[in-house]
Amino acid sequence: MVTRGLYVGRFQPFHIGHLDAIKAVLKEVDELVIVIGSAQYSHKPNNPFTAGERLVMVRHALQEAKIADSKVWIVPVPDVHLHMLWVSAVEGYTPKFTVVFTNEPLTRRLFSEAGYEVR
Amino acid sequence: MVTRGLYVGRFQPFHIGHLDAIKAVLKEVDELVIVIGSAQYSHKPNNPFTAGERLVMVRHALQEAKIADSKVWIVPVPDVHLHMLWVSAVEGYTPKFTVVFTNEPLTRRLFSEAGYEVR
Amino acid sequence: MVTRGLYVGRFQPFHIGHLDAIKAVLKEVDELVIVIGSAQYSHKPNNPFTAGERLVMVRHALQEAKIADSKVWIVPVPDVHLHMLWVSAVEGYTPKFTVVFTNEPLTRRLFSEAGYEVR
Amino acid sequence: MVTRGLYVGRFQPFHIGHLDAIKAVLKEVDELVIVIGSAQYSHKPNNPFTAGERLVMVRHALQEAKIADSKVWIVPVPDVHLHMLWVSAVEGYTPKFTVVFTNEPLTRRLFSEAGYEVR
Amino acid sequence: MVTRGLYVGRFQPFHIGHLDAIKAVLKEVDELVIVIGSAQYSHKPNNPFTAGERLVMVRHALQEAKIADSKVWIVPVPDVHLHMLWVSAVEGYTPKFTVVFTNEPLTRRLFSEAGYEVR
Amino acid sequence: MVTRGLYVGRFQPFHIGHLDAIKAVLKEVDELVIVIGSAQYSHKPNNPFTAGERLVMVRHALQEAKIADSKVWIVPVPDVHLHMLWVSAVEGYTPKFTVVFTNEPLTRRLFSEAGYEVR
Repeated sequence: MVTRGLYVGRFQPFHIGHLDAIKAVLKEVDELVIVIGSAQYSHKPNNPFTAGERLVMVRHALQEAKIADSKVWIVPVPDVHLHMLWVSAVEGYTPKFTVVFTNEPLTRRLFSEAGYEVR
Repeated sequence: MVTRGLYVGRFQPFHIGHLDAIKAVLKEVDELVIVIGSAQYSHKPNNPFTAGERLVMVRHALQEAKIADSKVWIVPVPDVHLHMLWVSAVEGYTPKFTVVFTNEPLTRRLFSEAGYEVR
Repeated sequence: MVTRGLYVGRFQPFHIGHLDAIKAVLKEVDELVIVIGSAQYSHKPNNPFTAGERLVMVRHALQEAKIADSKVWIVPVPDVHLHMLWVSAVEGYTPKFTVVFTNEPLTRRLFSEAGYEVR
Repeated sequence: MVTRGLYVGRFQPFHIGHLDAIKAVLKEVDELVIVIGSAQYSHKPNNPFTAGERLVMVRHALQEAKIADSKVWIVPVPDVHLHMLWVSAVEGYTPKFTVVFTNEPLTRRLFSEAGYEVR
Repeated sequence: MVTRGLYVGRFQPFHIGHLDAIKAVLKEVDELVIVIGSAQYSHKPNNPFTAGERLVMVRHALQEAKIADSKVWIVPVPDVHLHMLWVSAVEGYTPKFTVVFTNEPLTRRLFSEAGYEVR
Repeated sequence: MVTRGLYVGRFQPFHIGHLDAIKAVLKEVDELVIVIGSAQYSHKPNNPFTAGERLVMVRHALQEAKIADSKVWIVPVPDVHLHMLWVSAVEGYTPKFTVVFTNEPLTRRLFSEAGYEVR
């Protein structure tokens, strides 16, 4: 069976640190779900790009890095603003995944509480 | 320059008619943005699948039909419920597109009013 | 440890069938969380009462039936309209529970999918 | 007729000051409606607990202080974020009340404008 | 002091019945607040026009009927979908008024409950 | 044909600078659409007045300045909080306009991107 991981970011913008993390994670799983968070925001100093612009940015960066399109699912997910609902929202918008990769303490806590393995 | 088309559906479920339409459209454009509409709904008689389940369904169907992953962008977009805002919402969630393919009268009207070529 | 059950209804209005169900359920658990669903609606033919009016109605009916206040938690929960988020929303508004009592197929399915025992 | 007061807090967490205020207020009214405000928030530094966790916290604290369950109504109410709607939202979620107890200037102003006695 | 009335409609479209009602009401009050309800909807069979289109329609019809611009306030108000909040929402969007003119039973009930004179 | 301009402000409160700007703009266009932005907010330090109070304030100030009611359309528009949707929201709530007057960089950028002349 395919092992699928989850990686969440706002990617405002996508940078080399994200790319390195994705490369590292792809050694541990067969496929990776990359969630573009806060998808509904744009045109703000801390959220300059639309979800569509970020989608293009992420995919082109991965293609240049020779990561096959078929290894990743890039999915914009709008914020629901209620932490208690957020894991369910991510689950609803994405293919099933079993491992979550994150350094962000809140993401770690929310997915752990929901029973996921977090690395 | 790449010509990019837009194709919108709820895909509850994705069926052979959708696949035929996508194949036909891909003869006219270089890339196709496939919007999974009403992305936030699921578990209802007329909207049984989550956006994530539909994403898997659409992508696997296209892969089986030998359509290259690199030709399409599959993007879940939640409904905003206000027709006056819907074209802007689609634009915000997707890569730029110039042609819209639809048989649905309201979609046709909304994108025409917004200045798009609709085929 | 206390066993806590969950019982969900709109209670528009609360009737004898609800009361009988609650009495039966209270033989199986120590405490019962009674969720007043669709809490934000009122003044409509199919949702005539506010959450506040229903709260009074349910509590007074239980008191008349000699059910101790300390055995139940009556909690209004607003609809989130997204089935994929609903279990999380109920979990967020209520004390922890381990068993769900329902005859309603969608409620049964959503809580089963989330890993609860449903009776 | 029963005199019913209103007392609003976020209770993140419930503390001794809240308990003292509630004890004092219960000398002036027969029953007290305790609104758990900002009910939809949790998992944040300034809003750590879910409405359900706060509900348990408040009720157990009152029981330990020998305040009868039958004297209070503990009701989670989600924020509507529009001050002009907030009094109506509280009225919709709670049993009828006639006096409002608060030290918070905005709450005082909003309920006064709506015609309530504020102490 | 100026007596100000309230008149609510969706005006999809504005018709002669509305105009007659407004003329009649203007004999009883000095100024009239005309609320364009369901302001956020458009492009639907039962809500074809945007709030902007309806604003133009109502104002031009009144001007043709020689009703002075200074006698009326035409104000689009979006639906809040919660009847318990609707009177507060109208109050927030409009100049103060003291009388409500309506034949619609729910509007009559909601404004009566809120303490307005309804004719 | 009538030339119609757009002028947007929150008007918390309306002041002499706004009035001077409106007078200047009215020399360049036949009619002016004055949008009262953030219409749903009030009772806050930085948004003290309701849309209704601001509507009265703006109209009375214009009348005192001898600007004919028939030259202006004063329209409250609630924020949608998503910059990508904001131009569409303004278009939906207002009469058609062709020129936008603003000094605010974001407003300038959003309307320019949408194809409007901005002065």
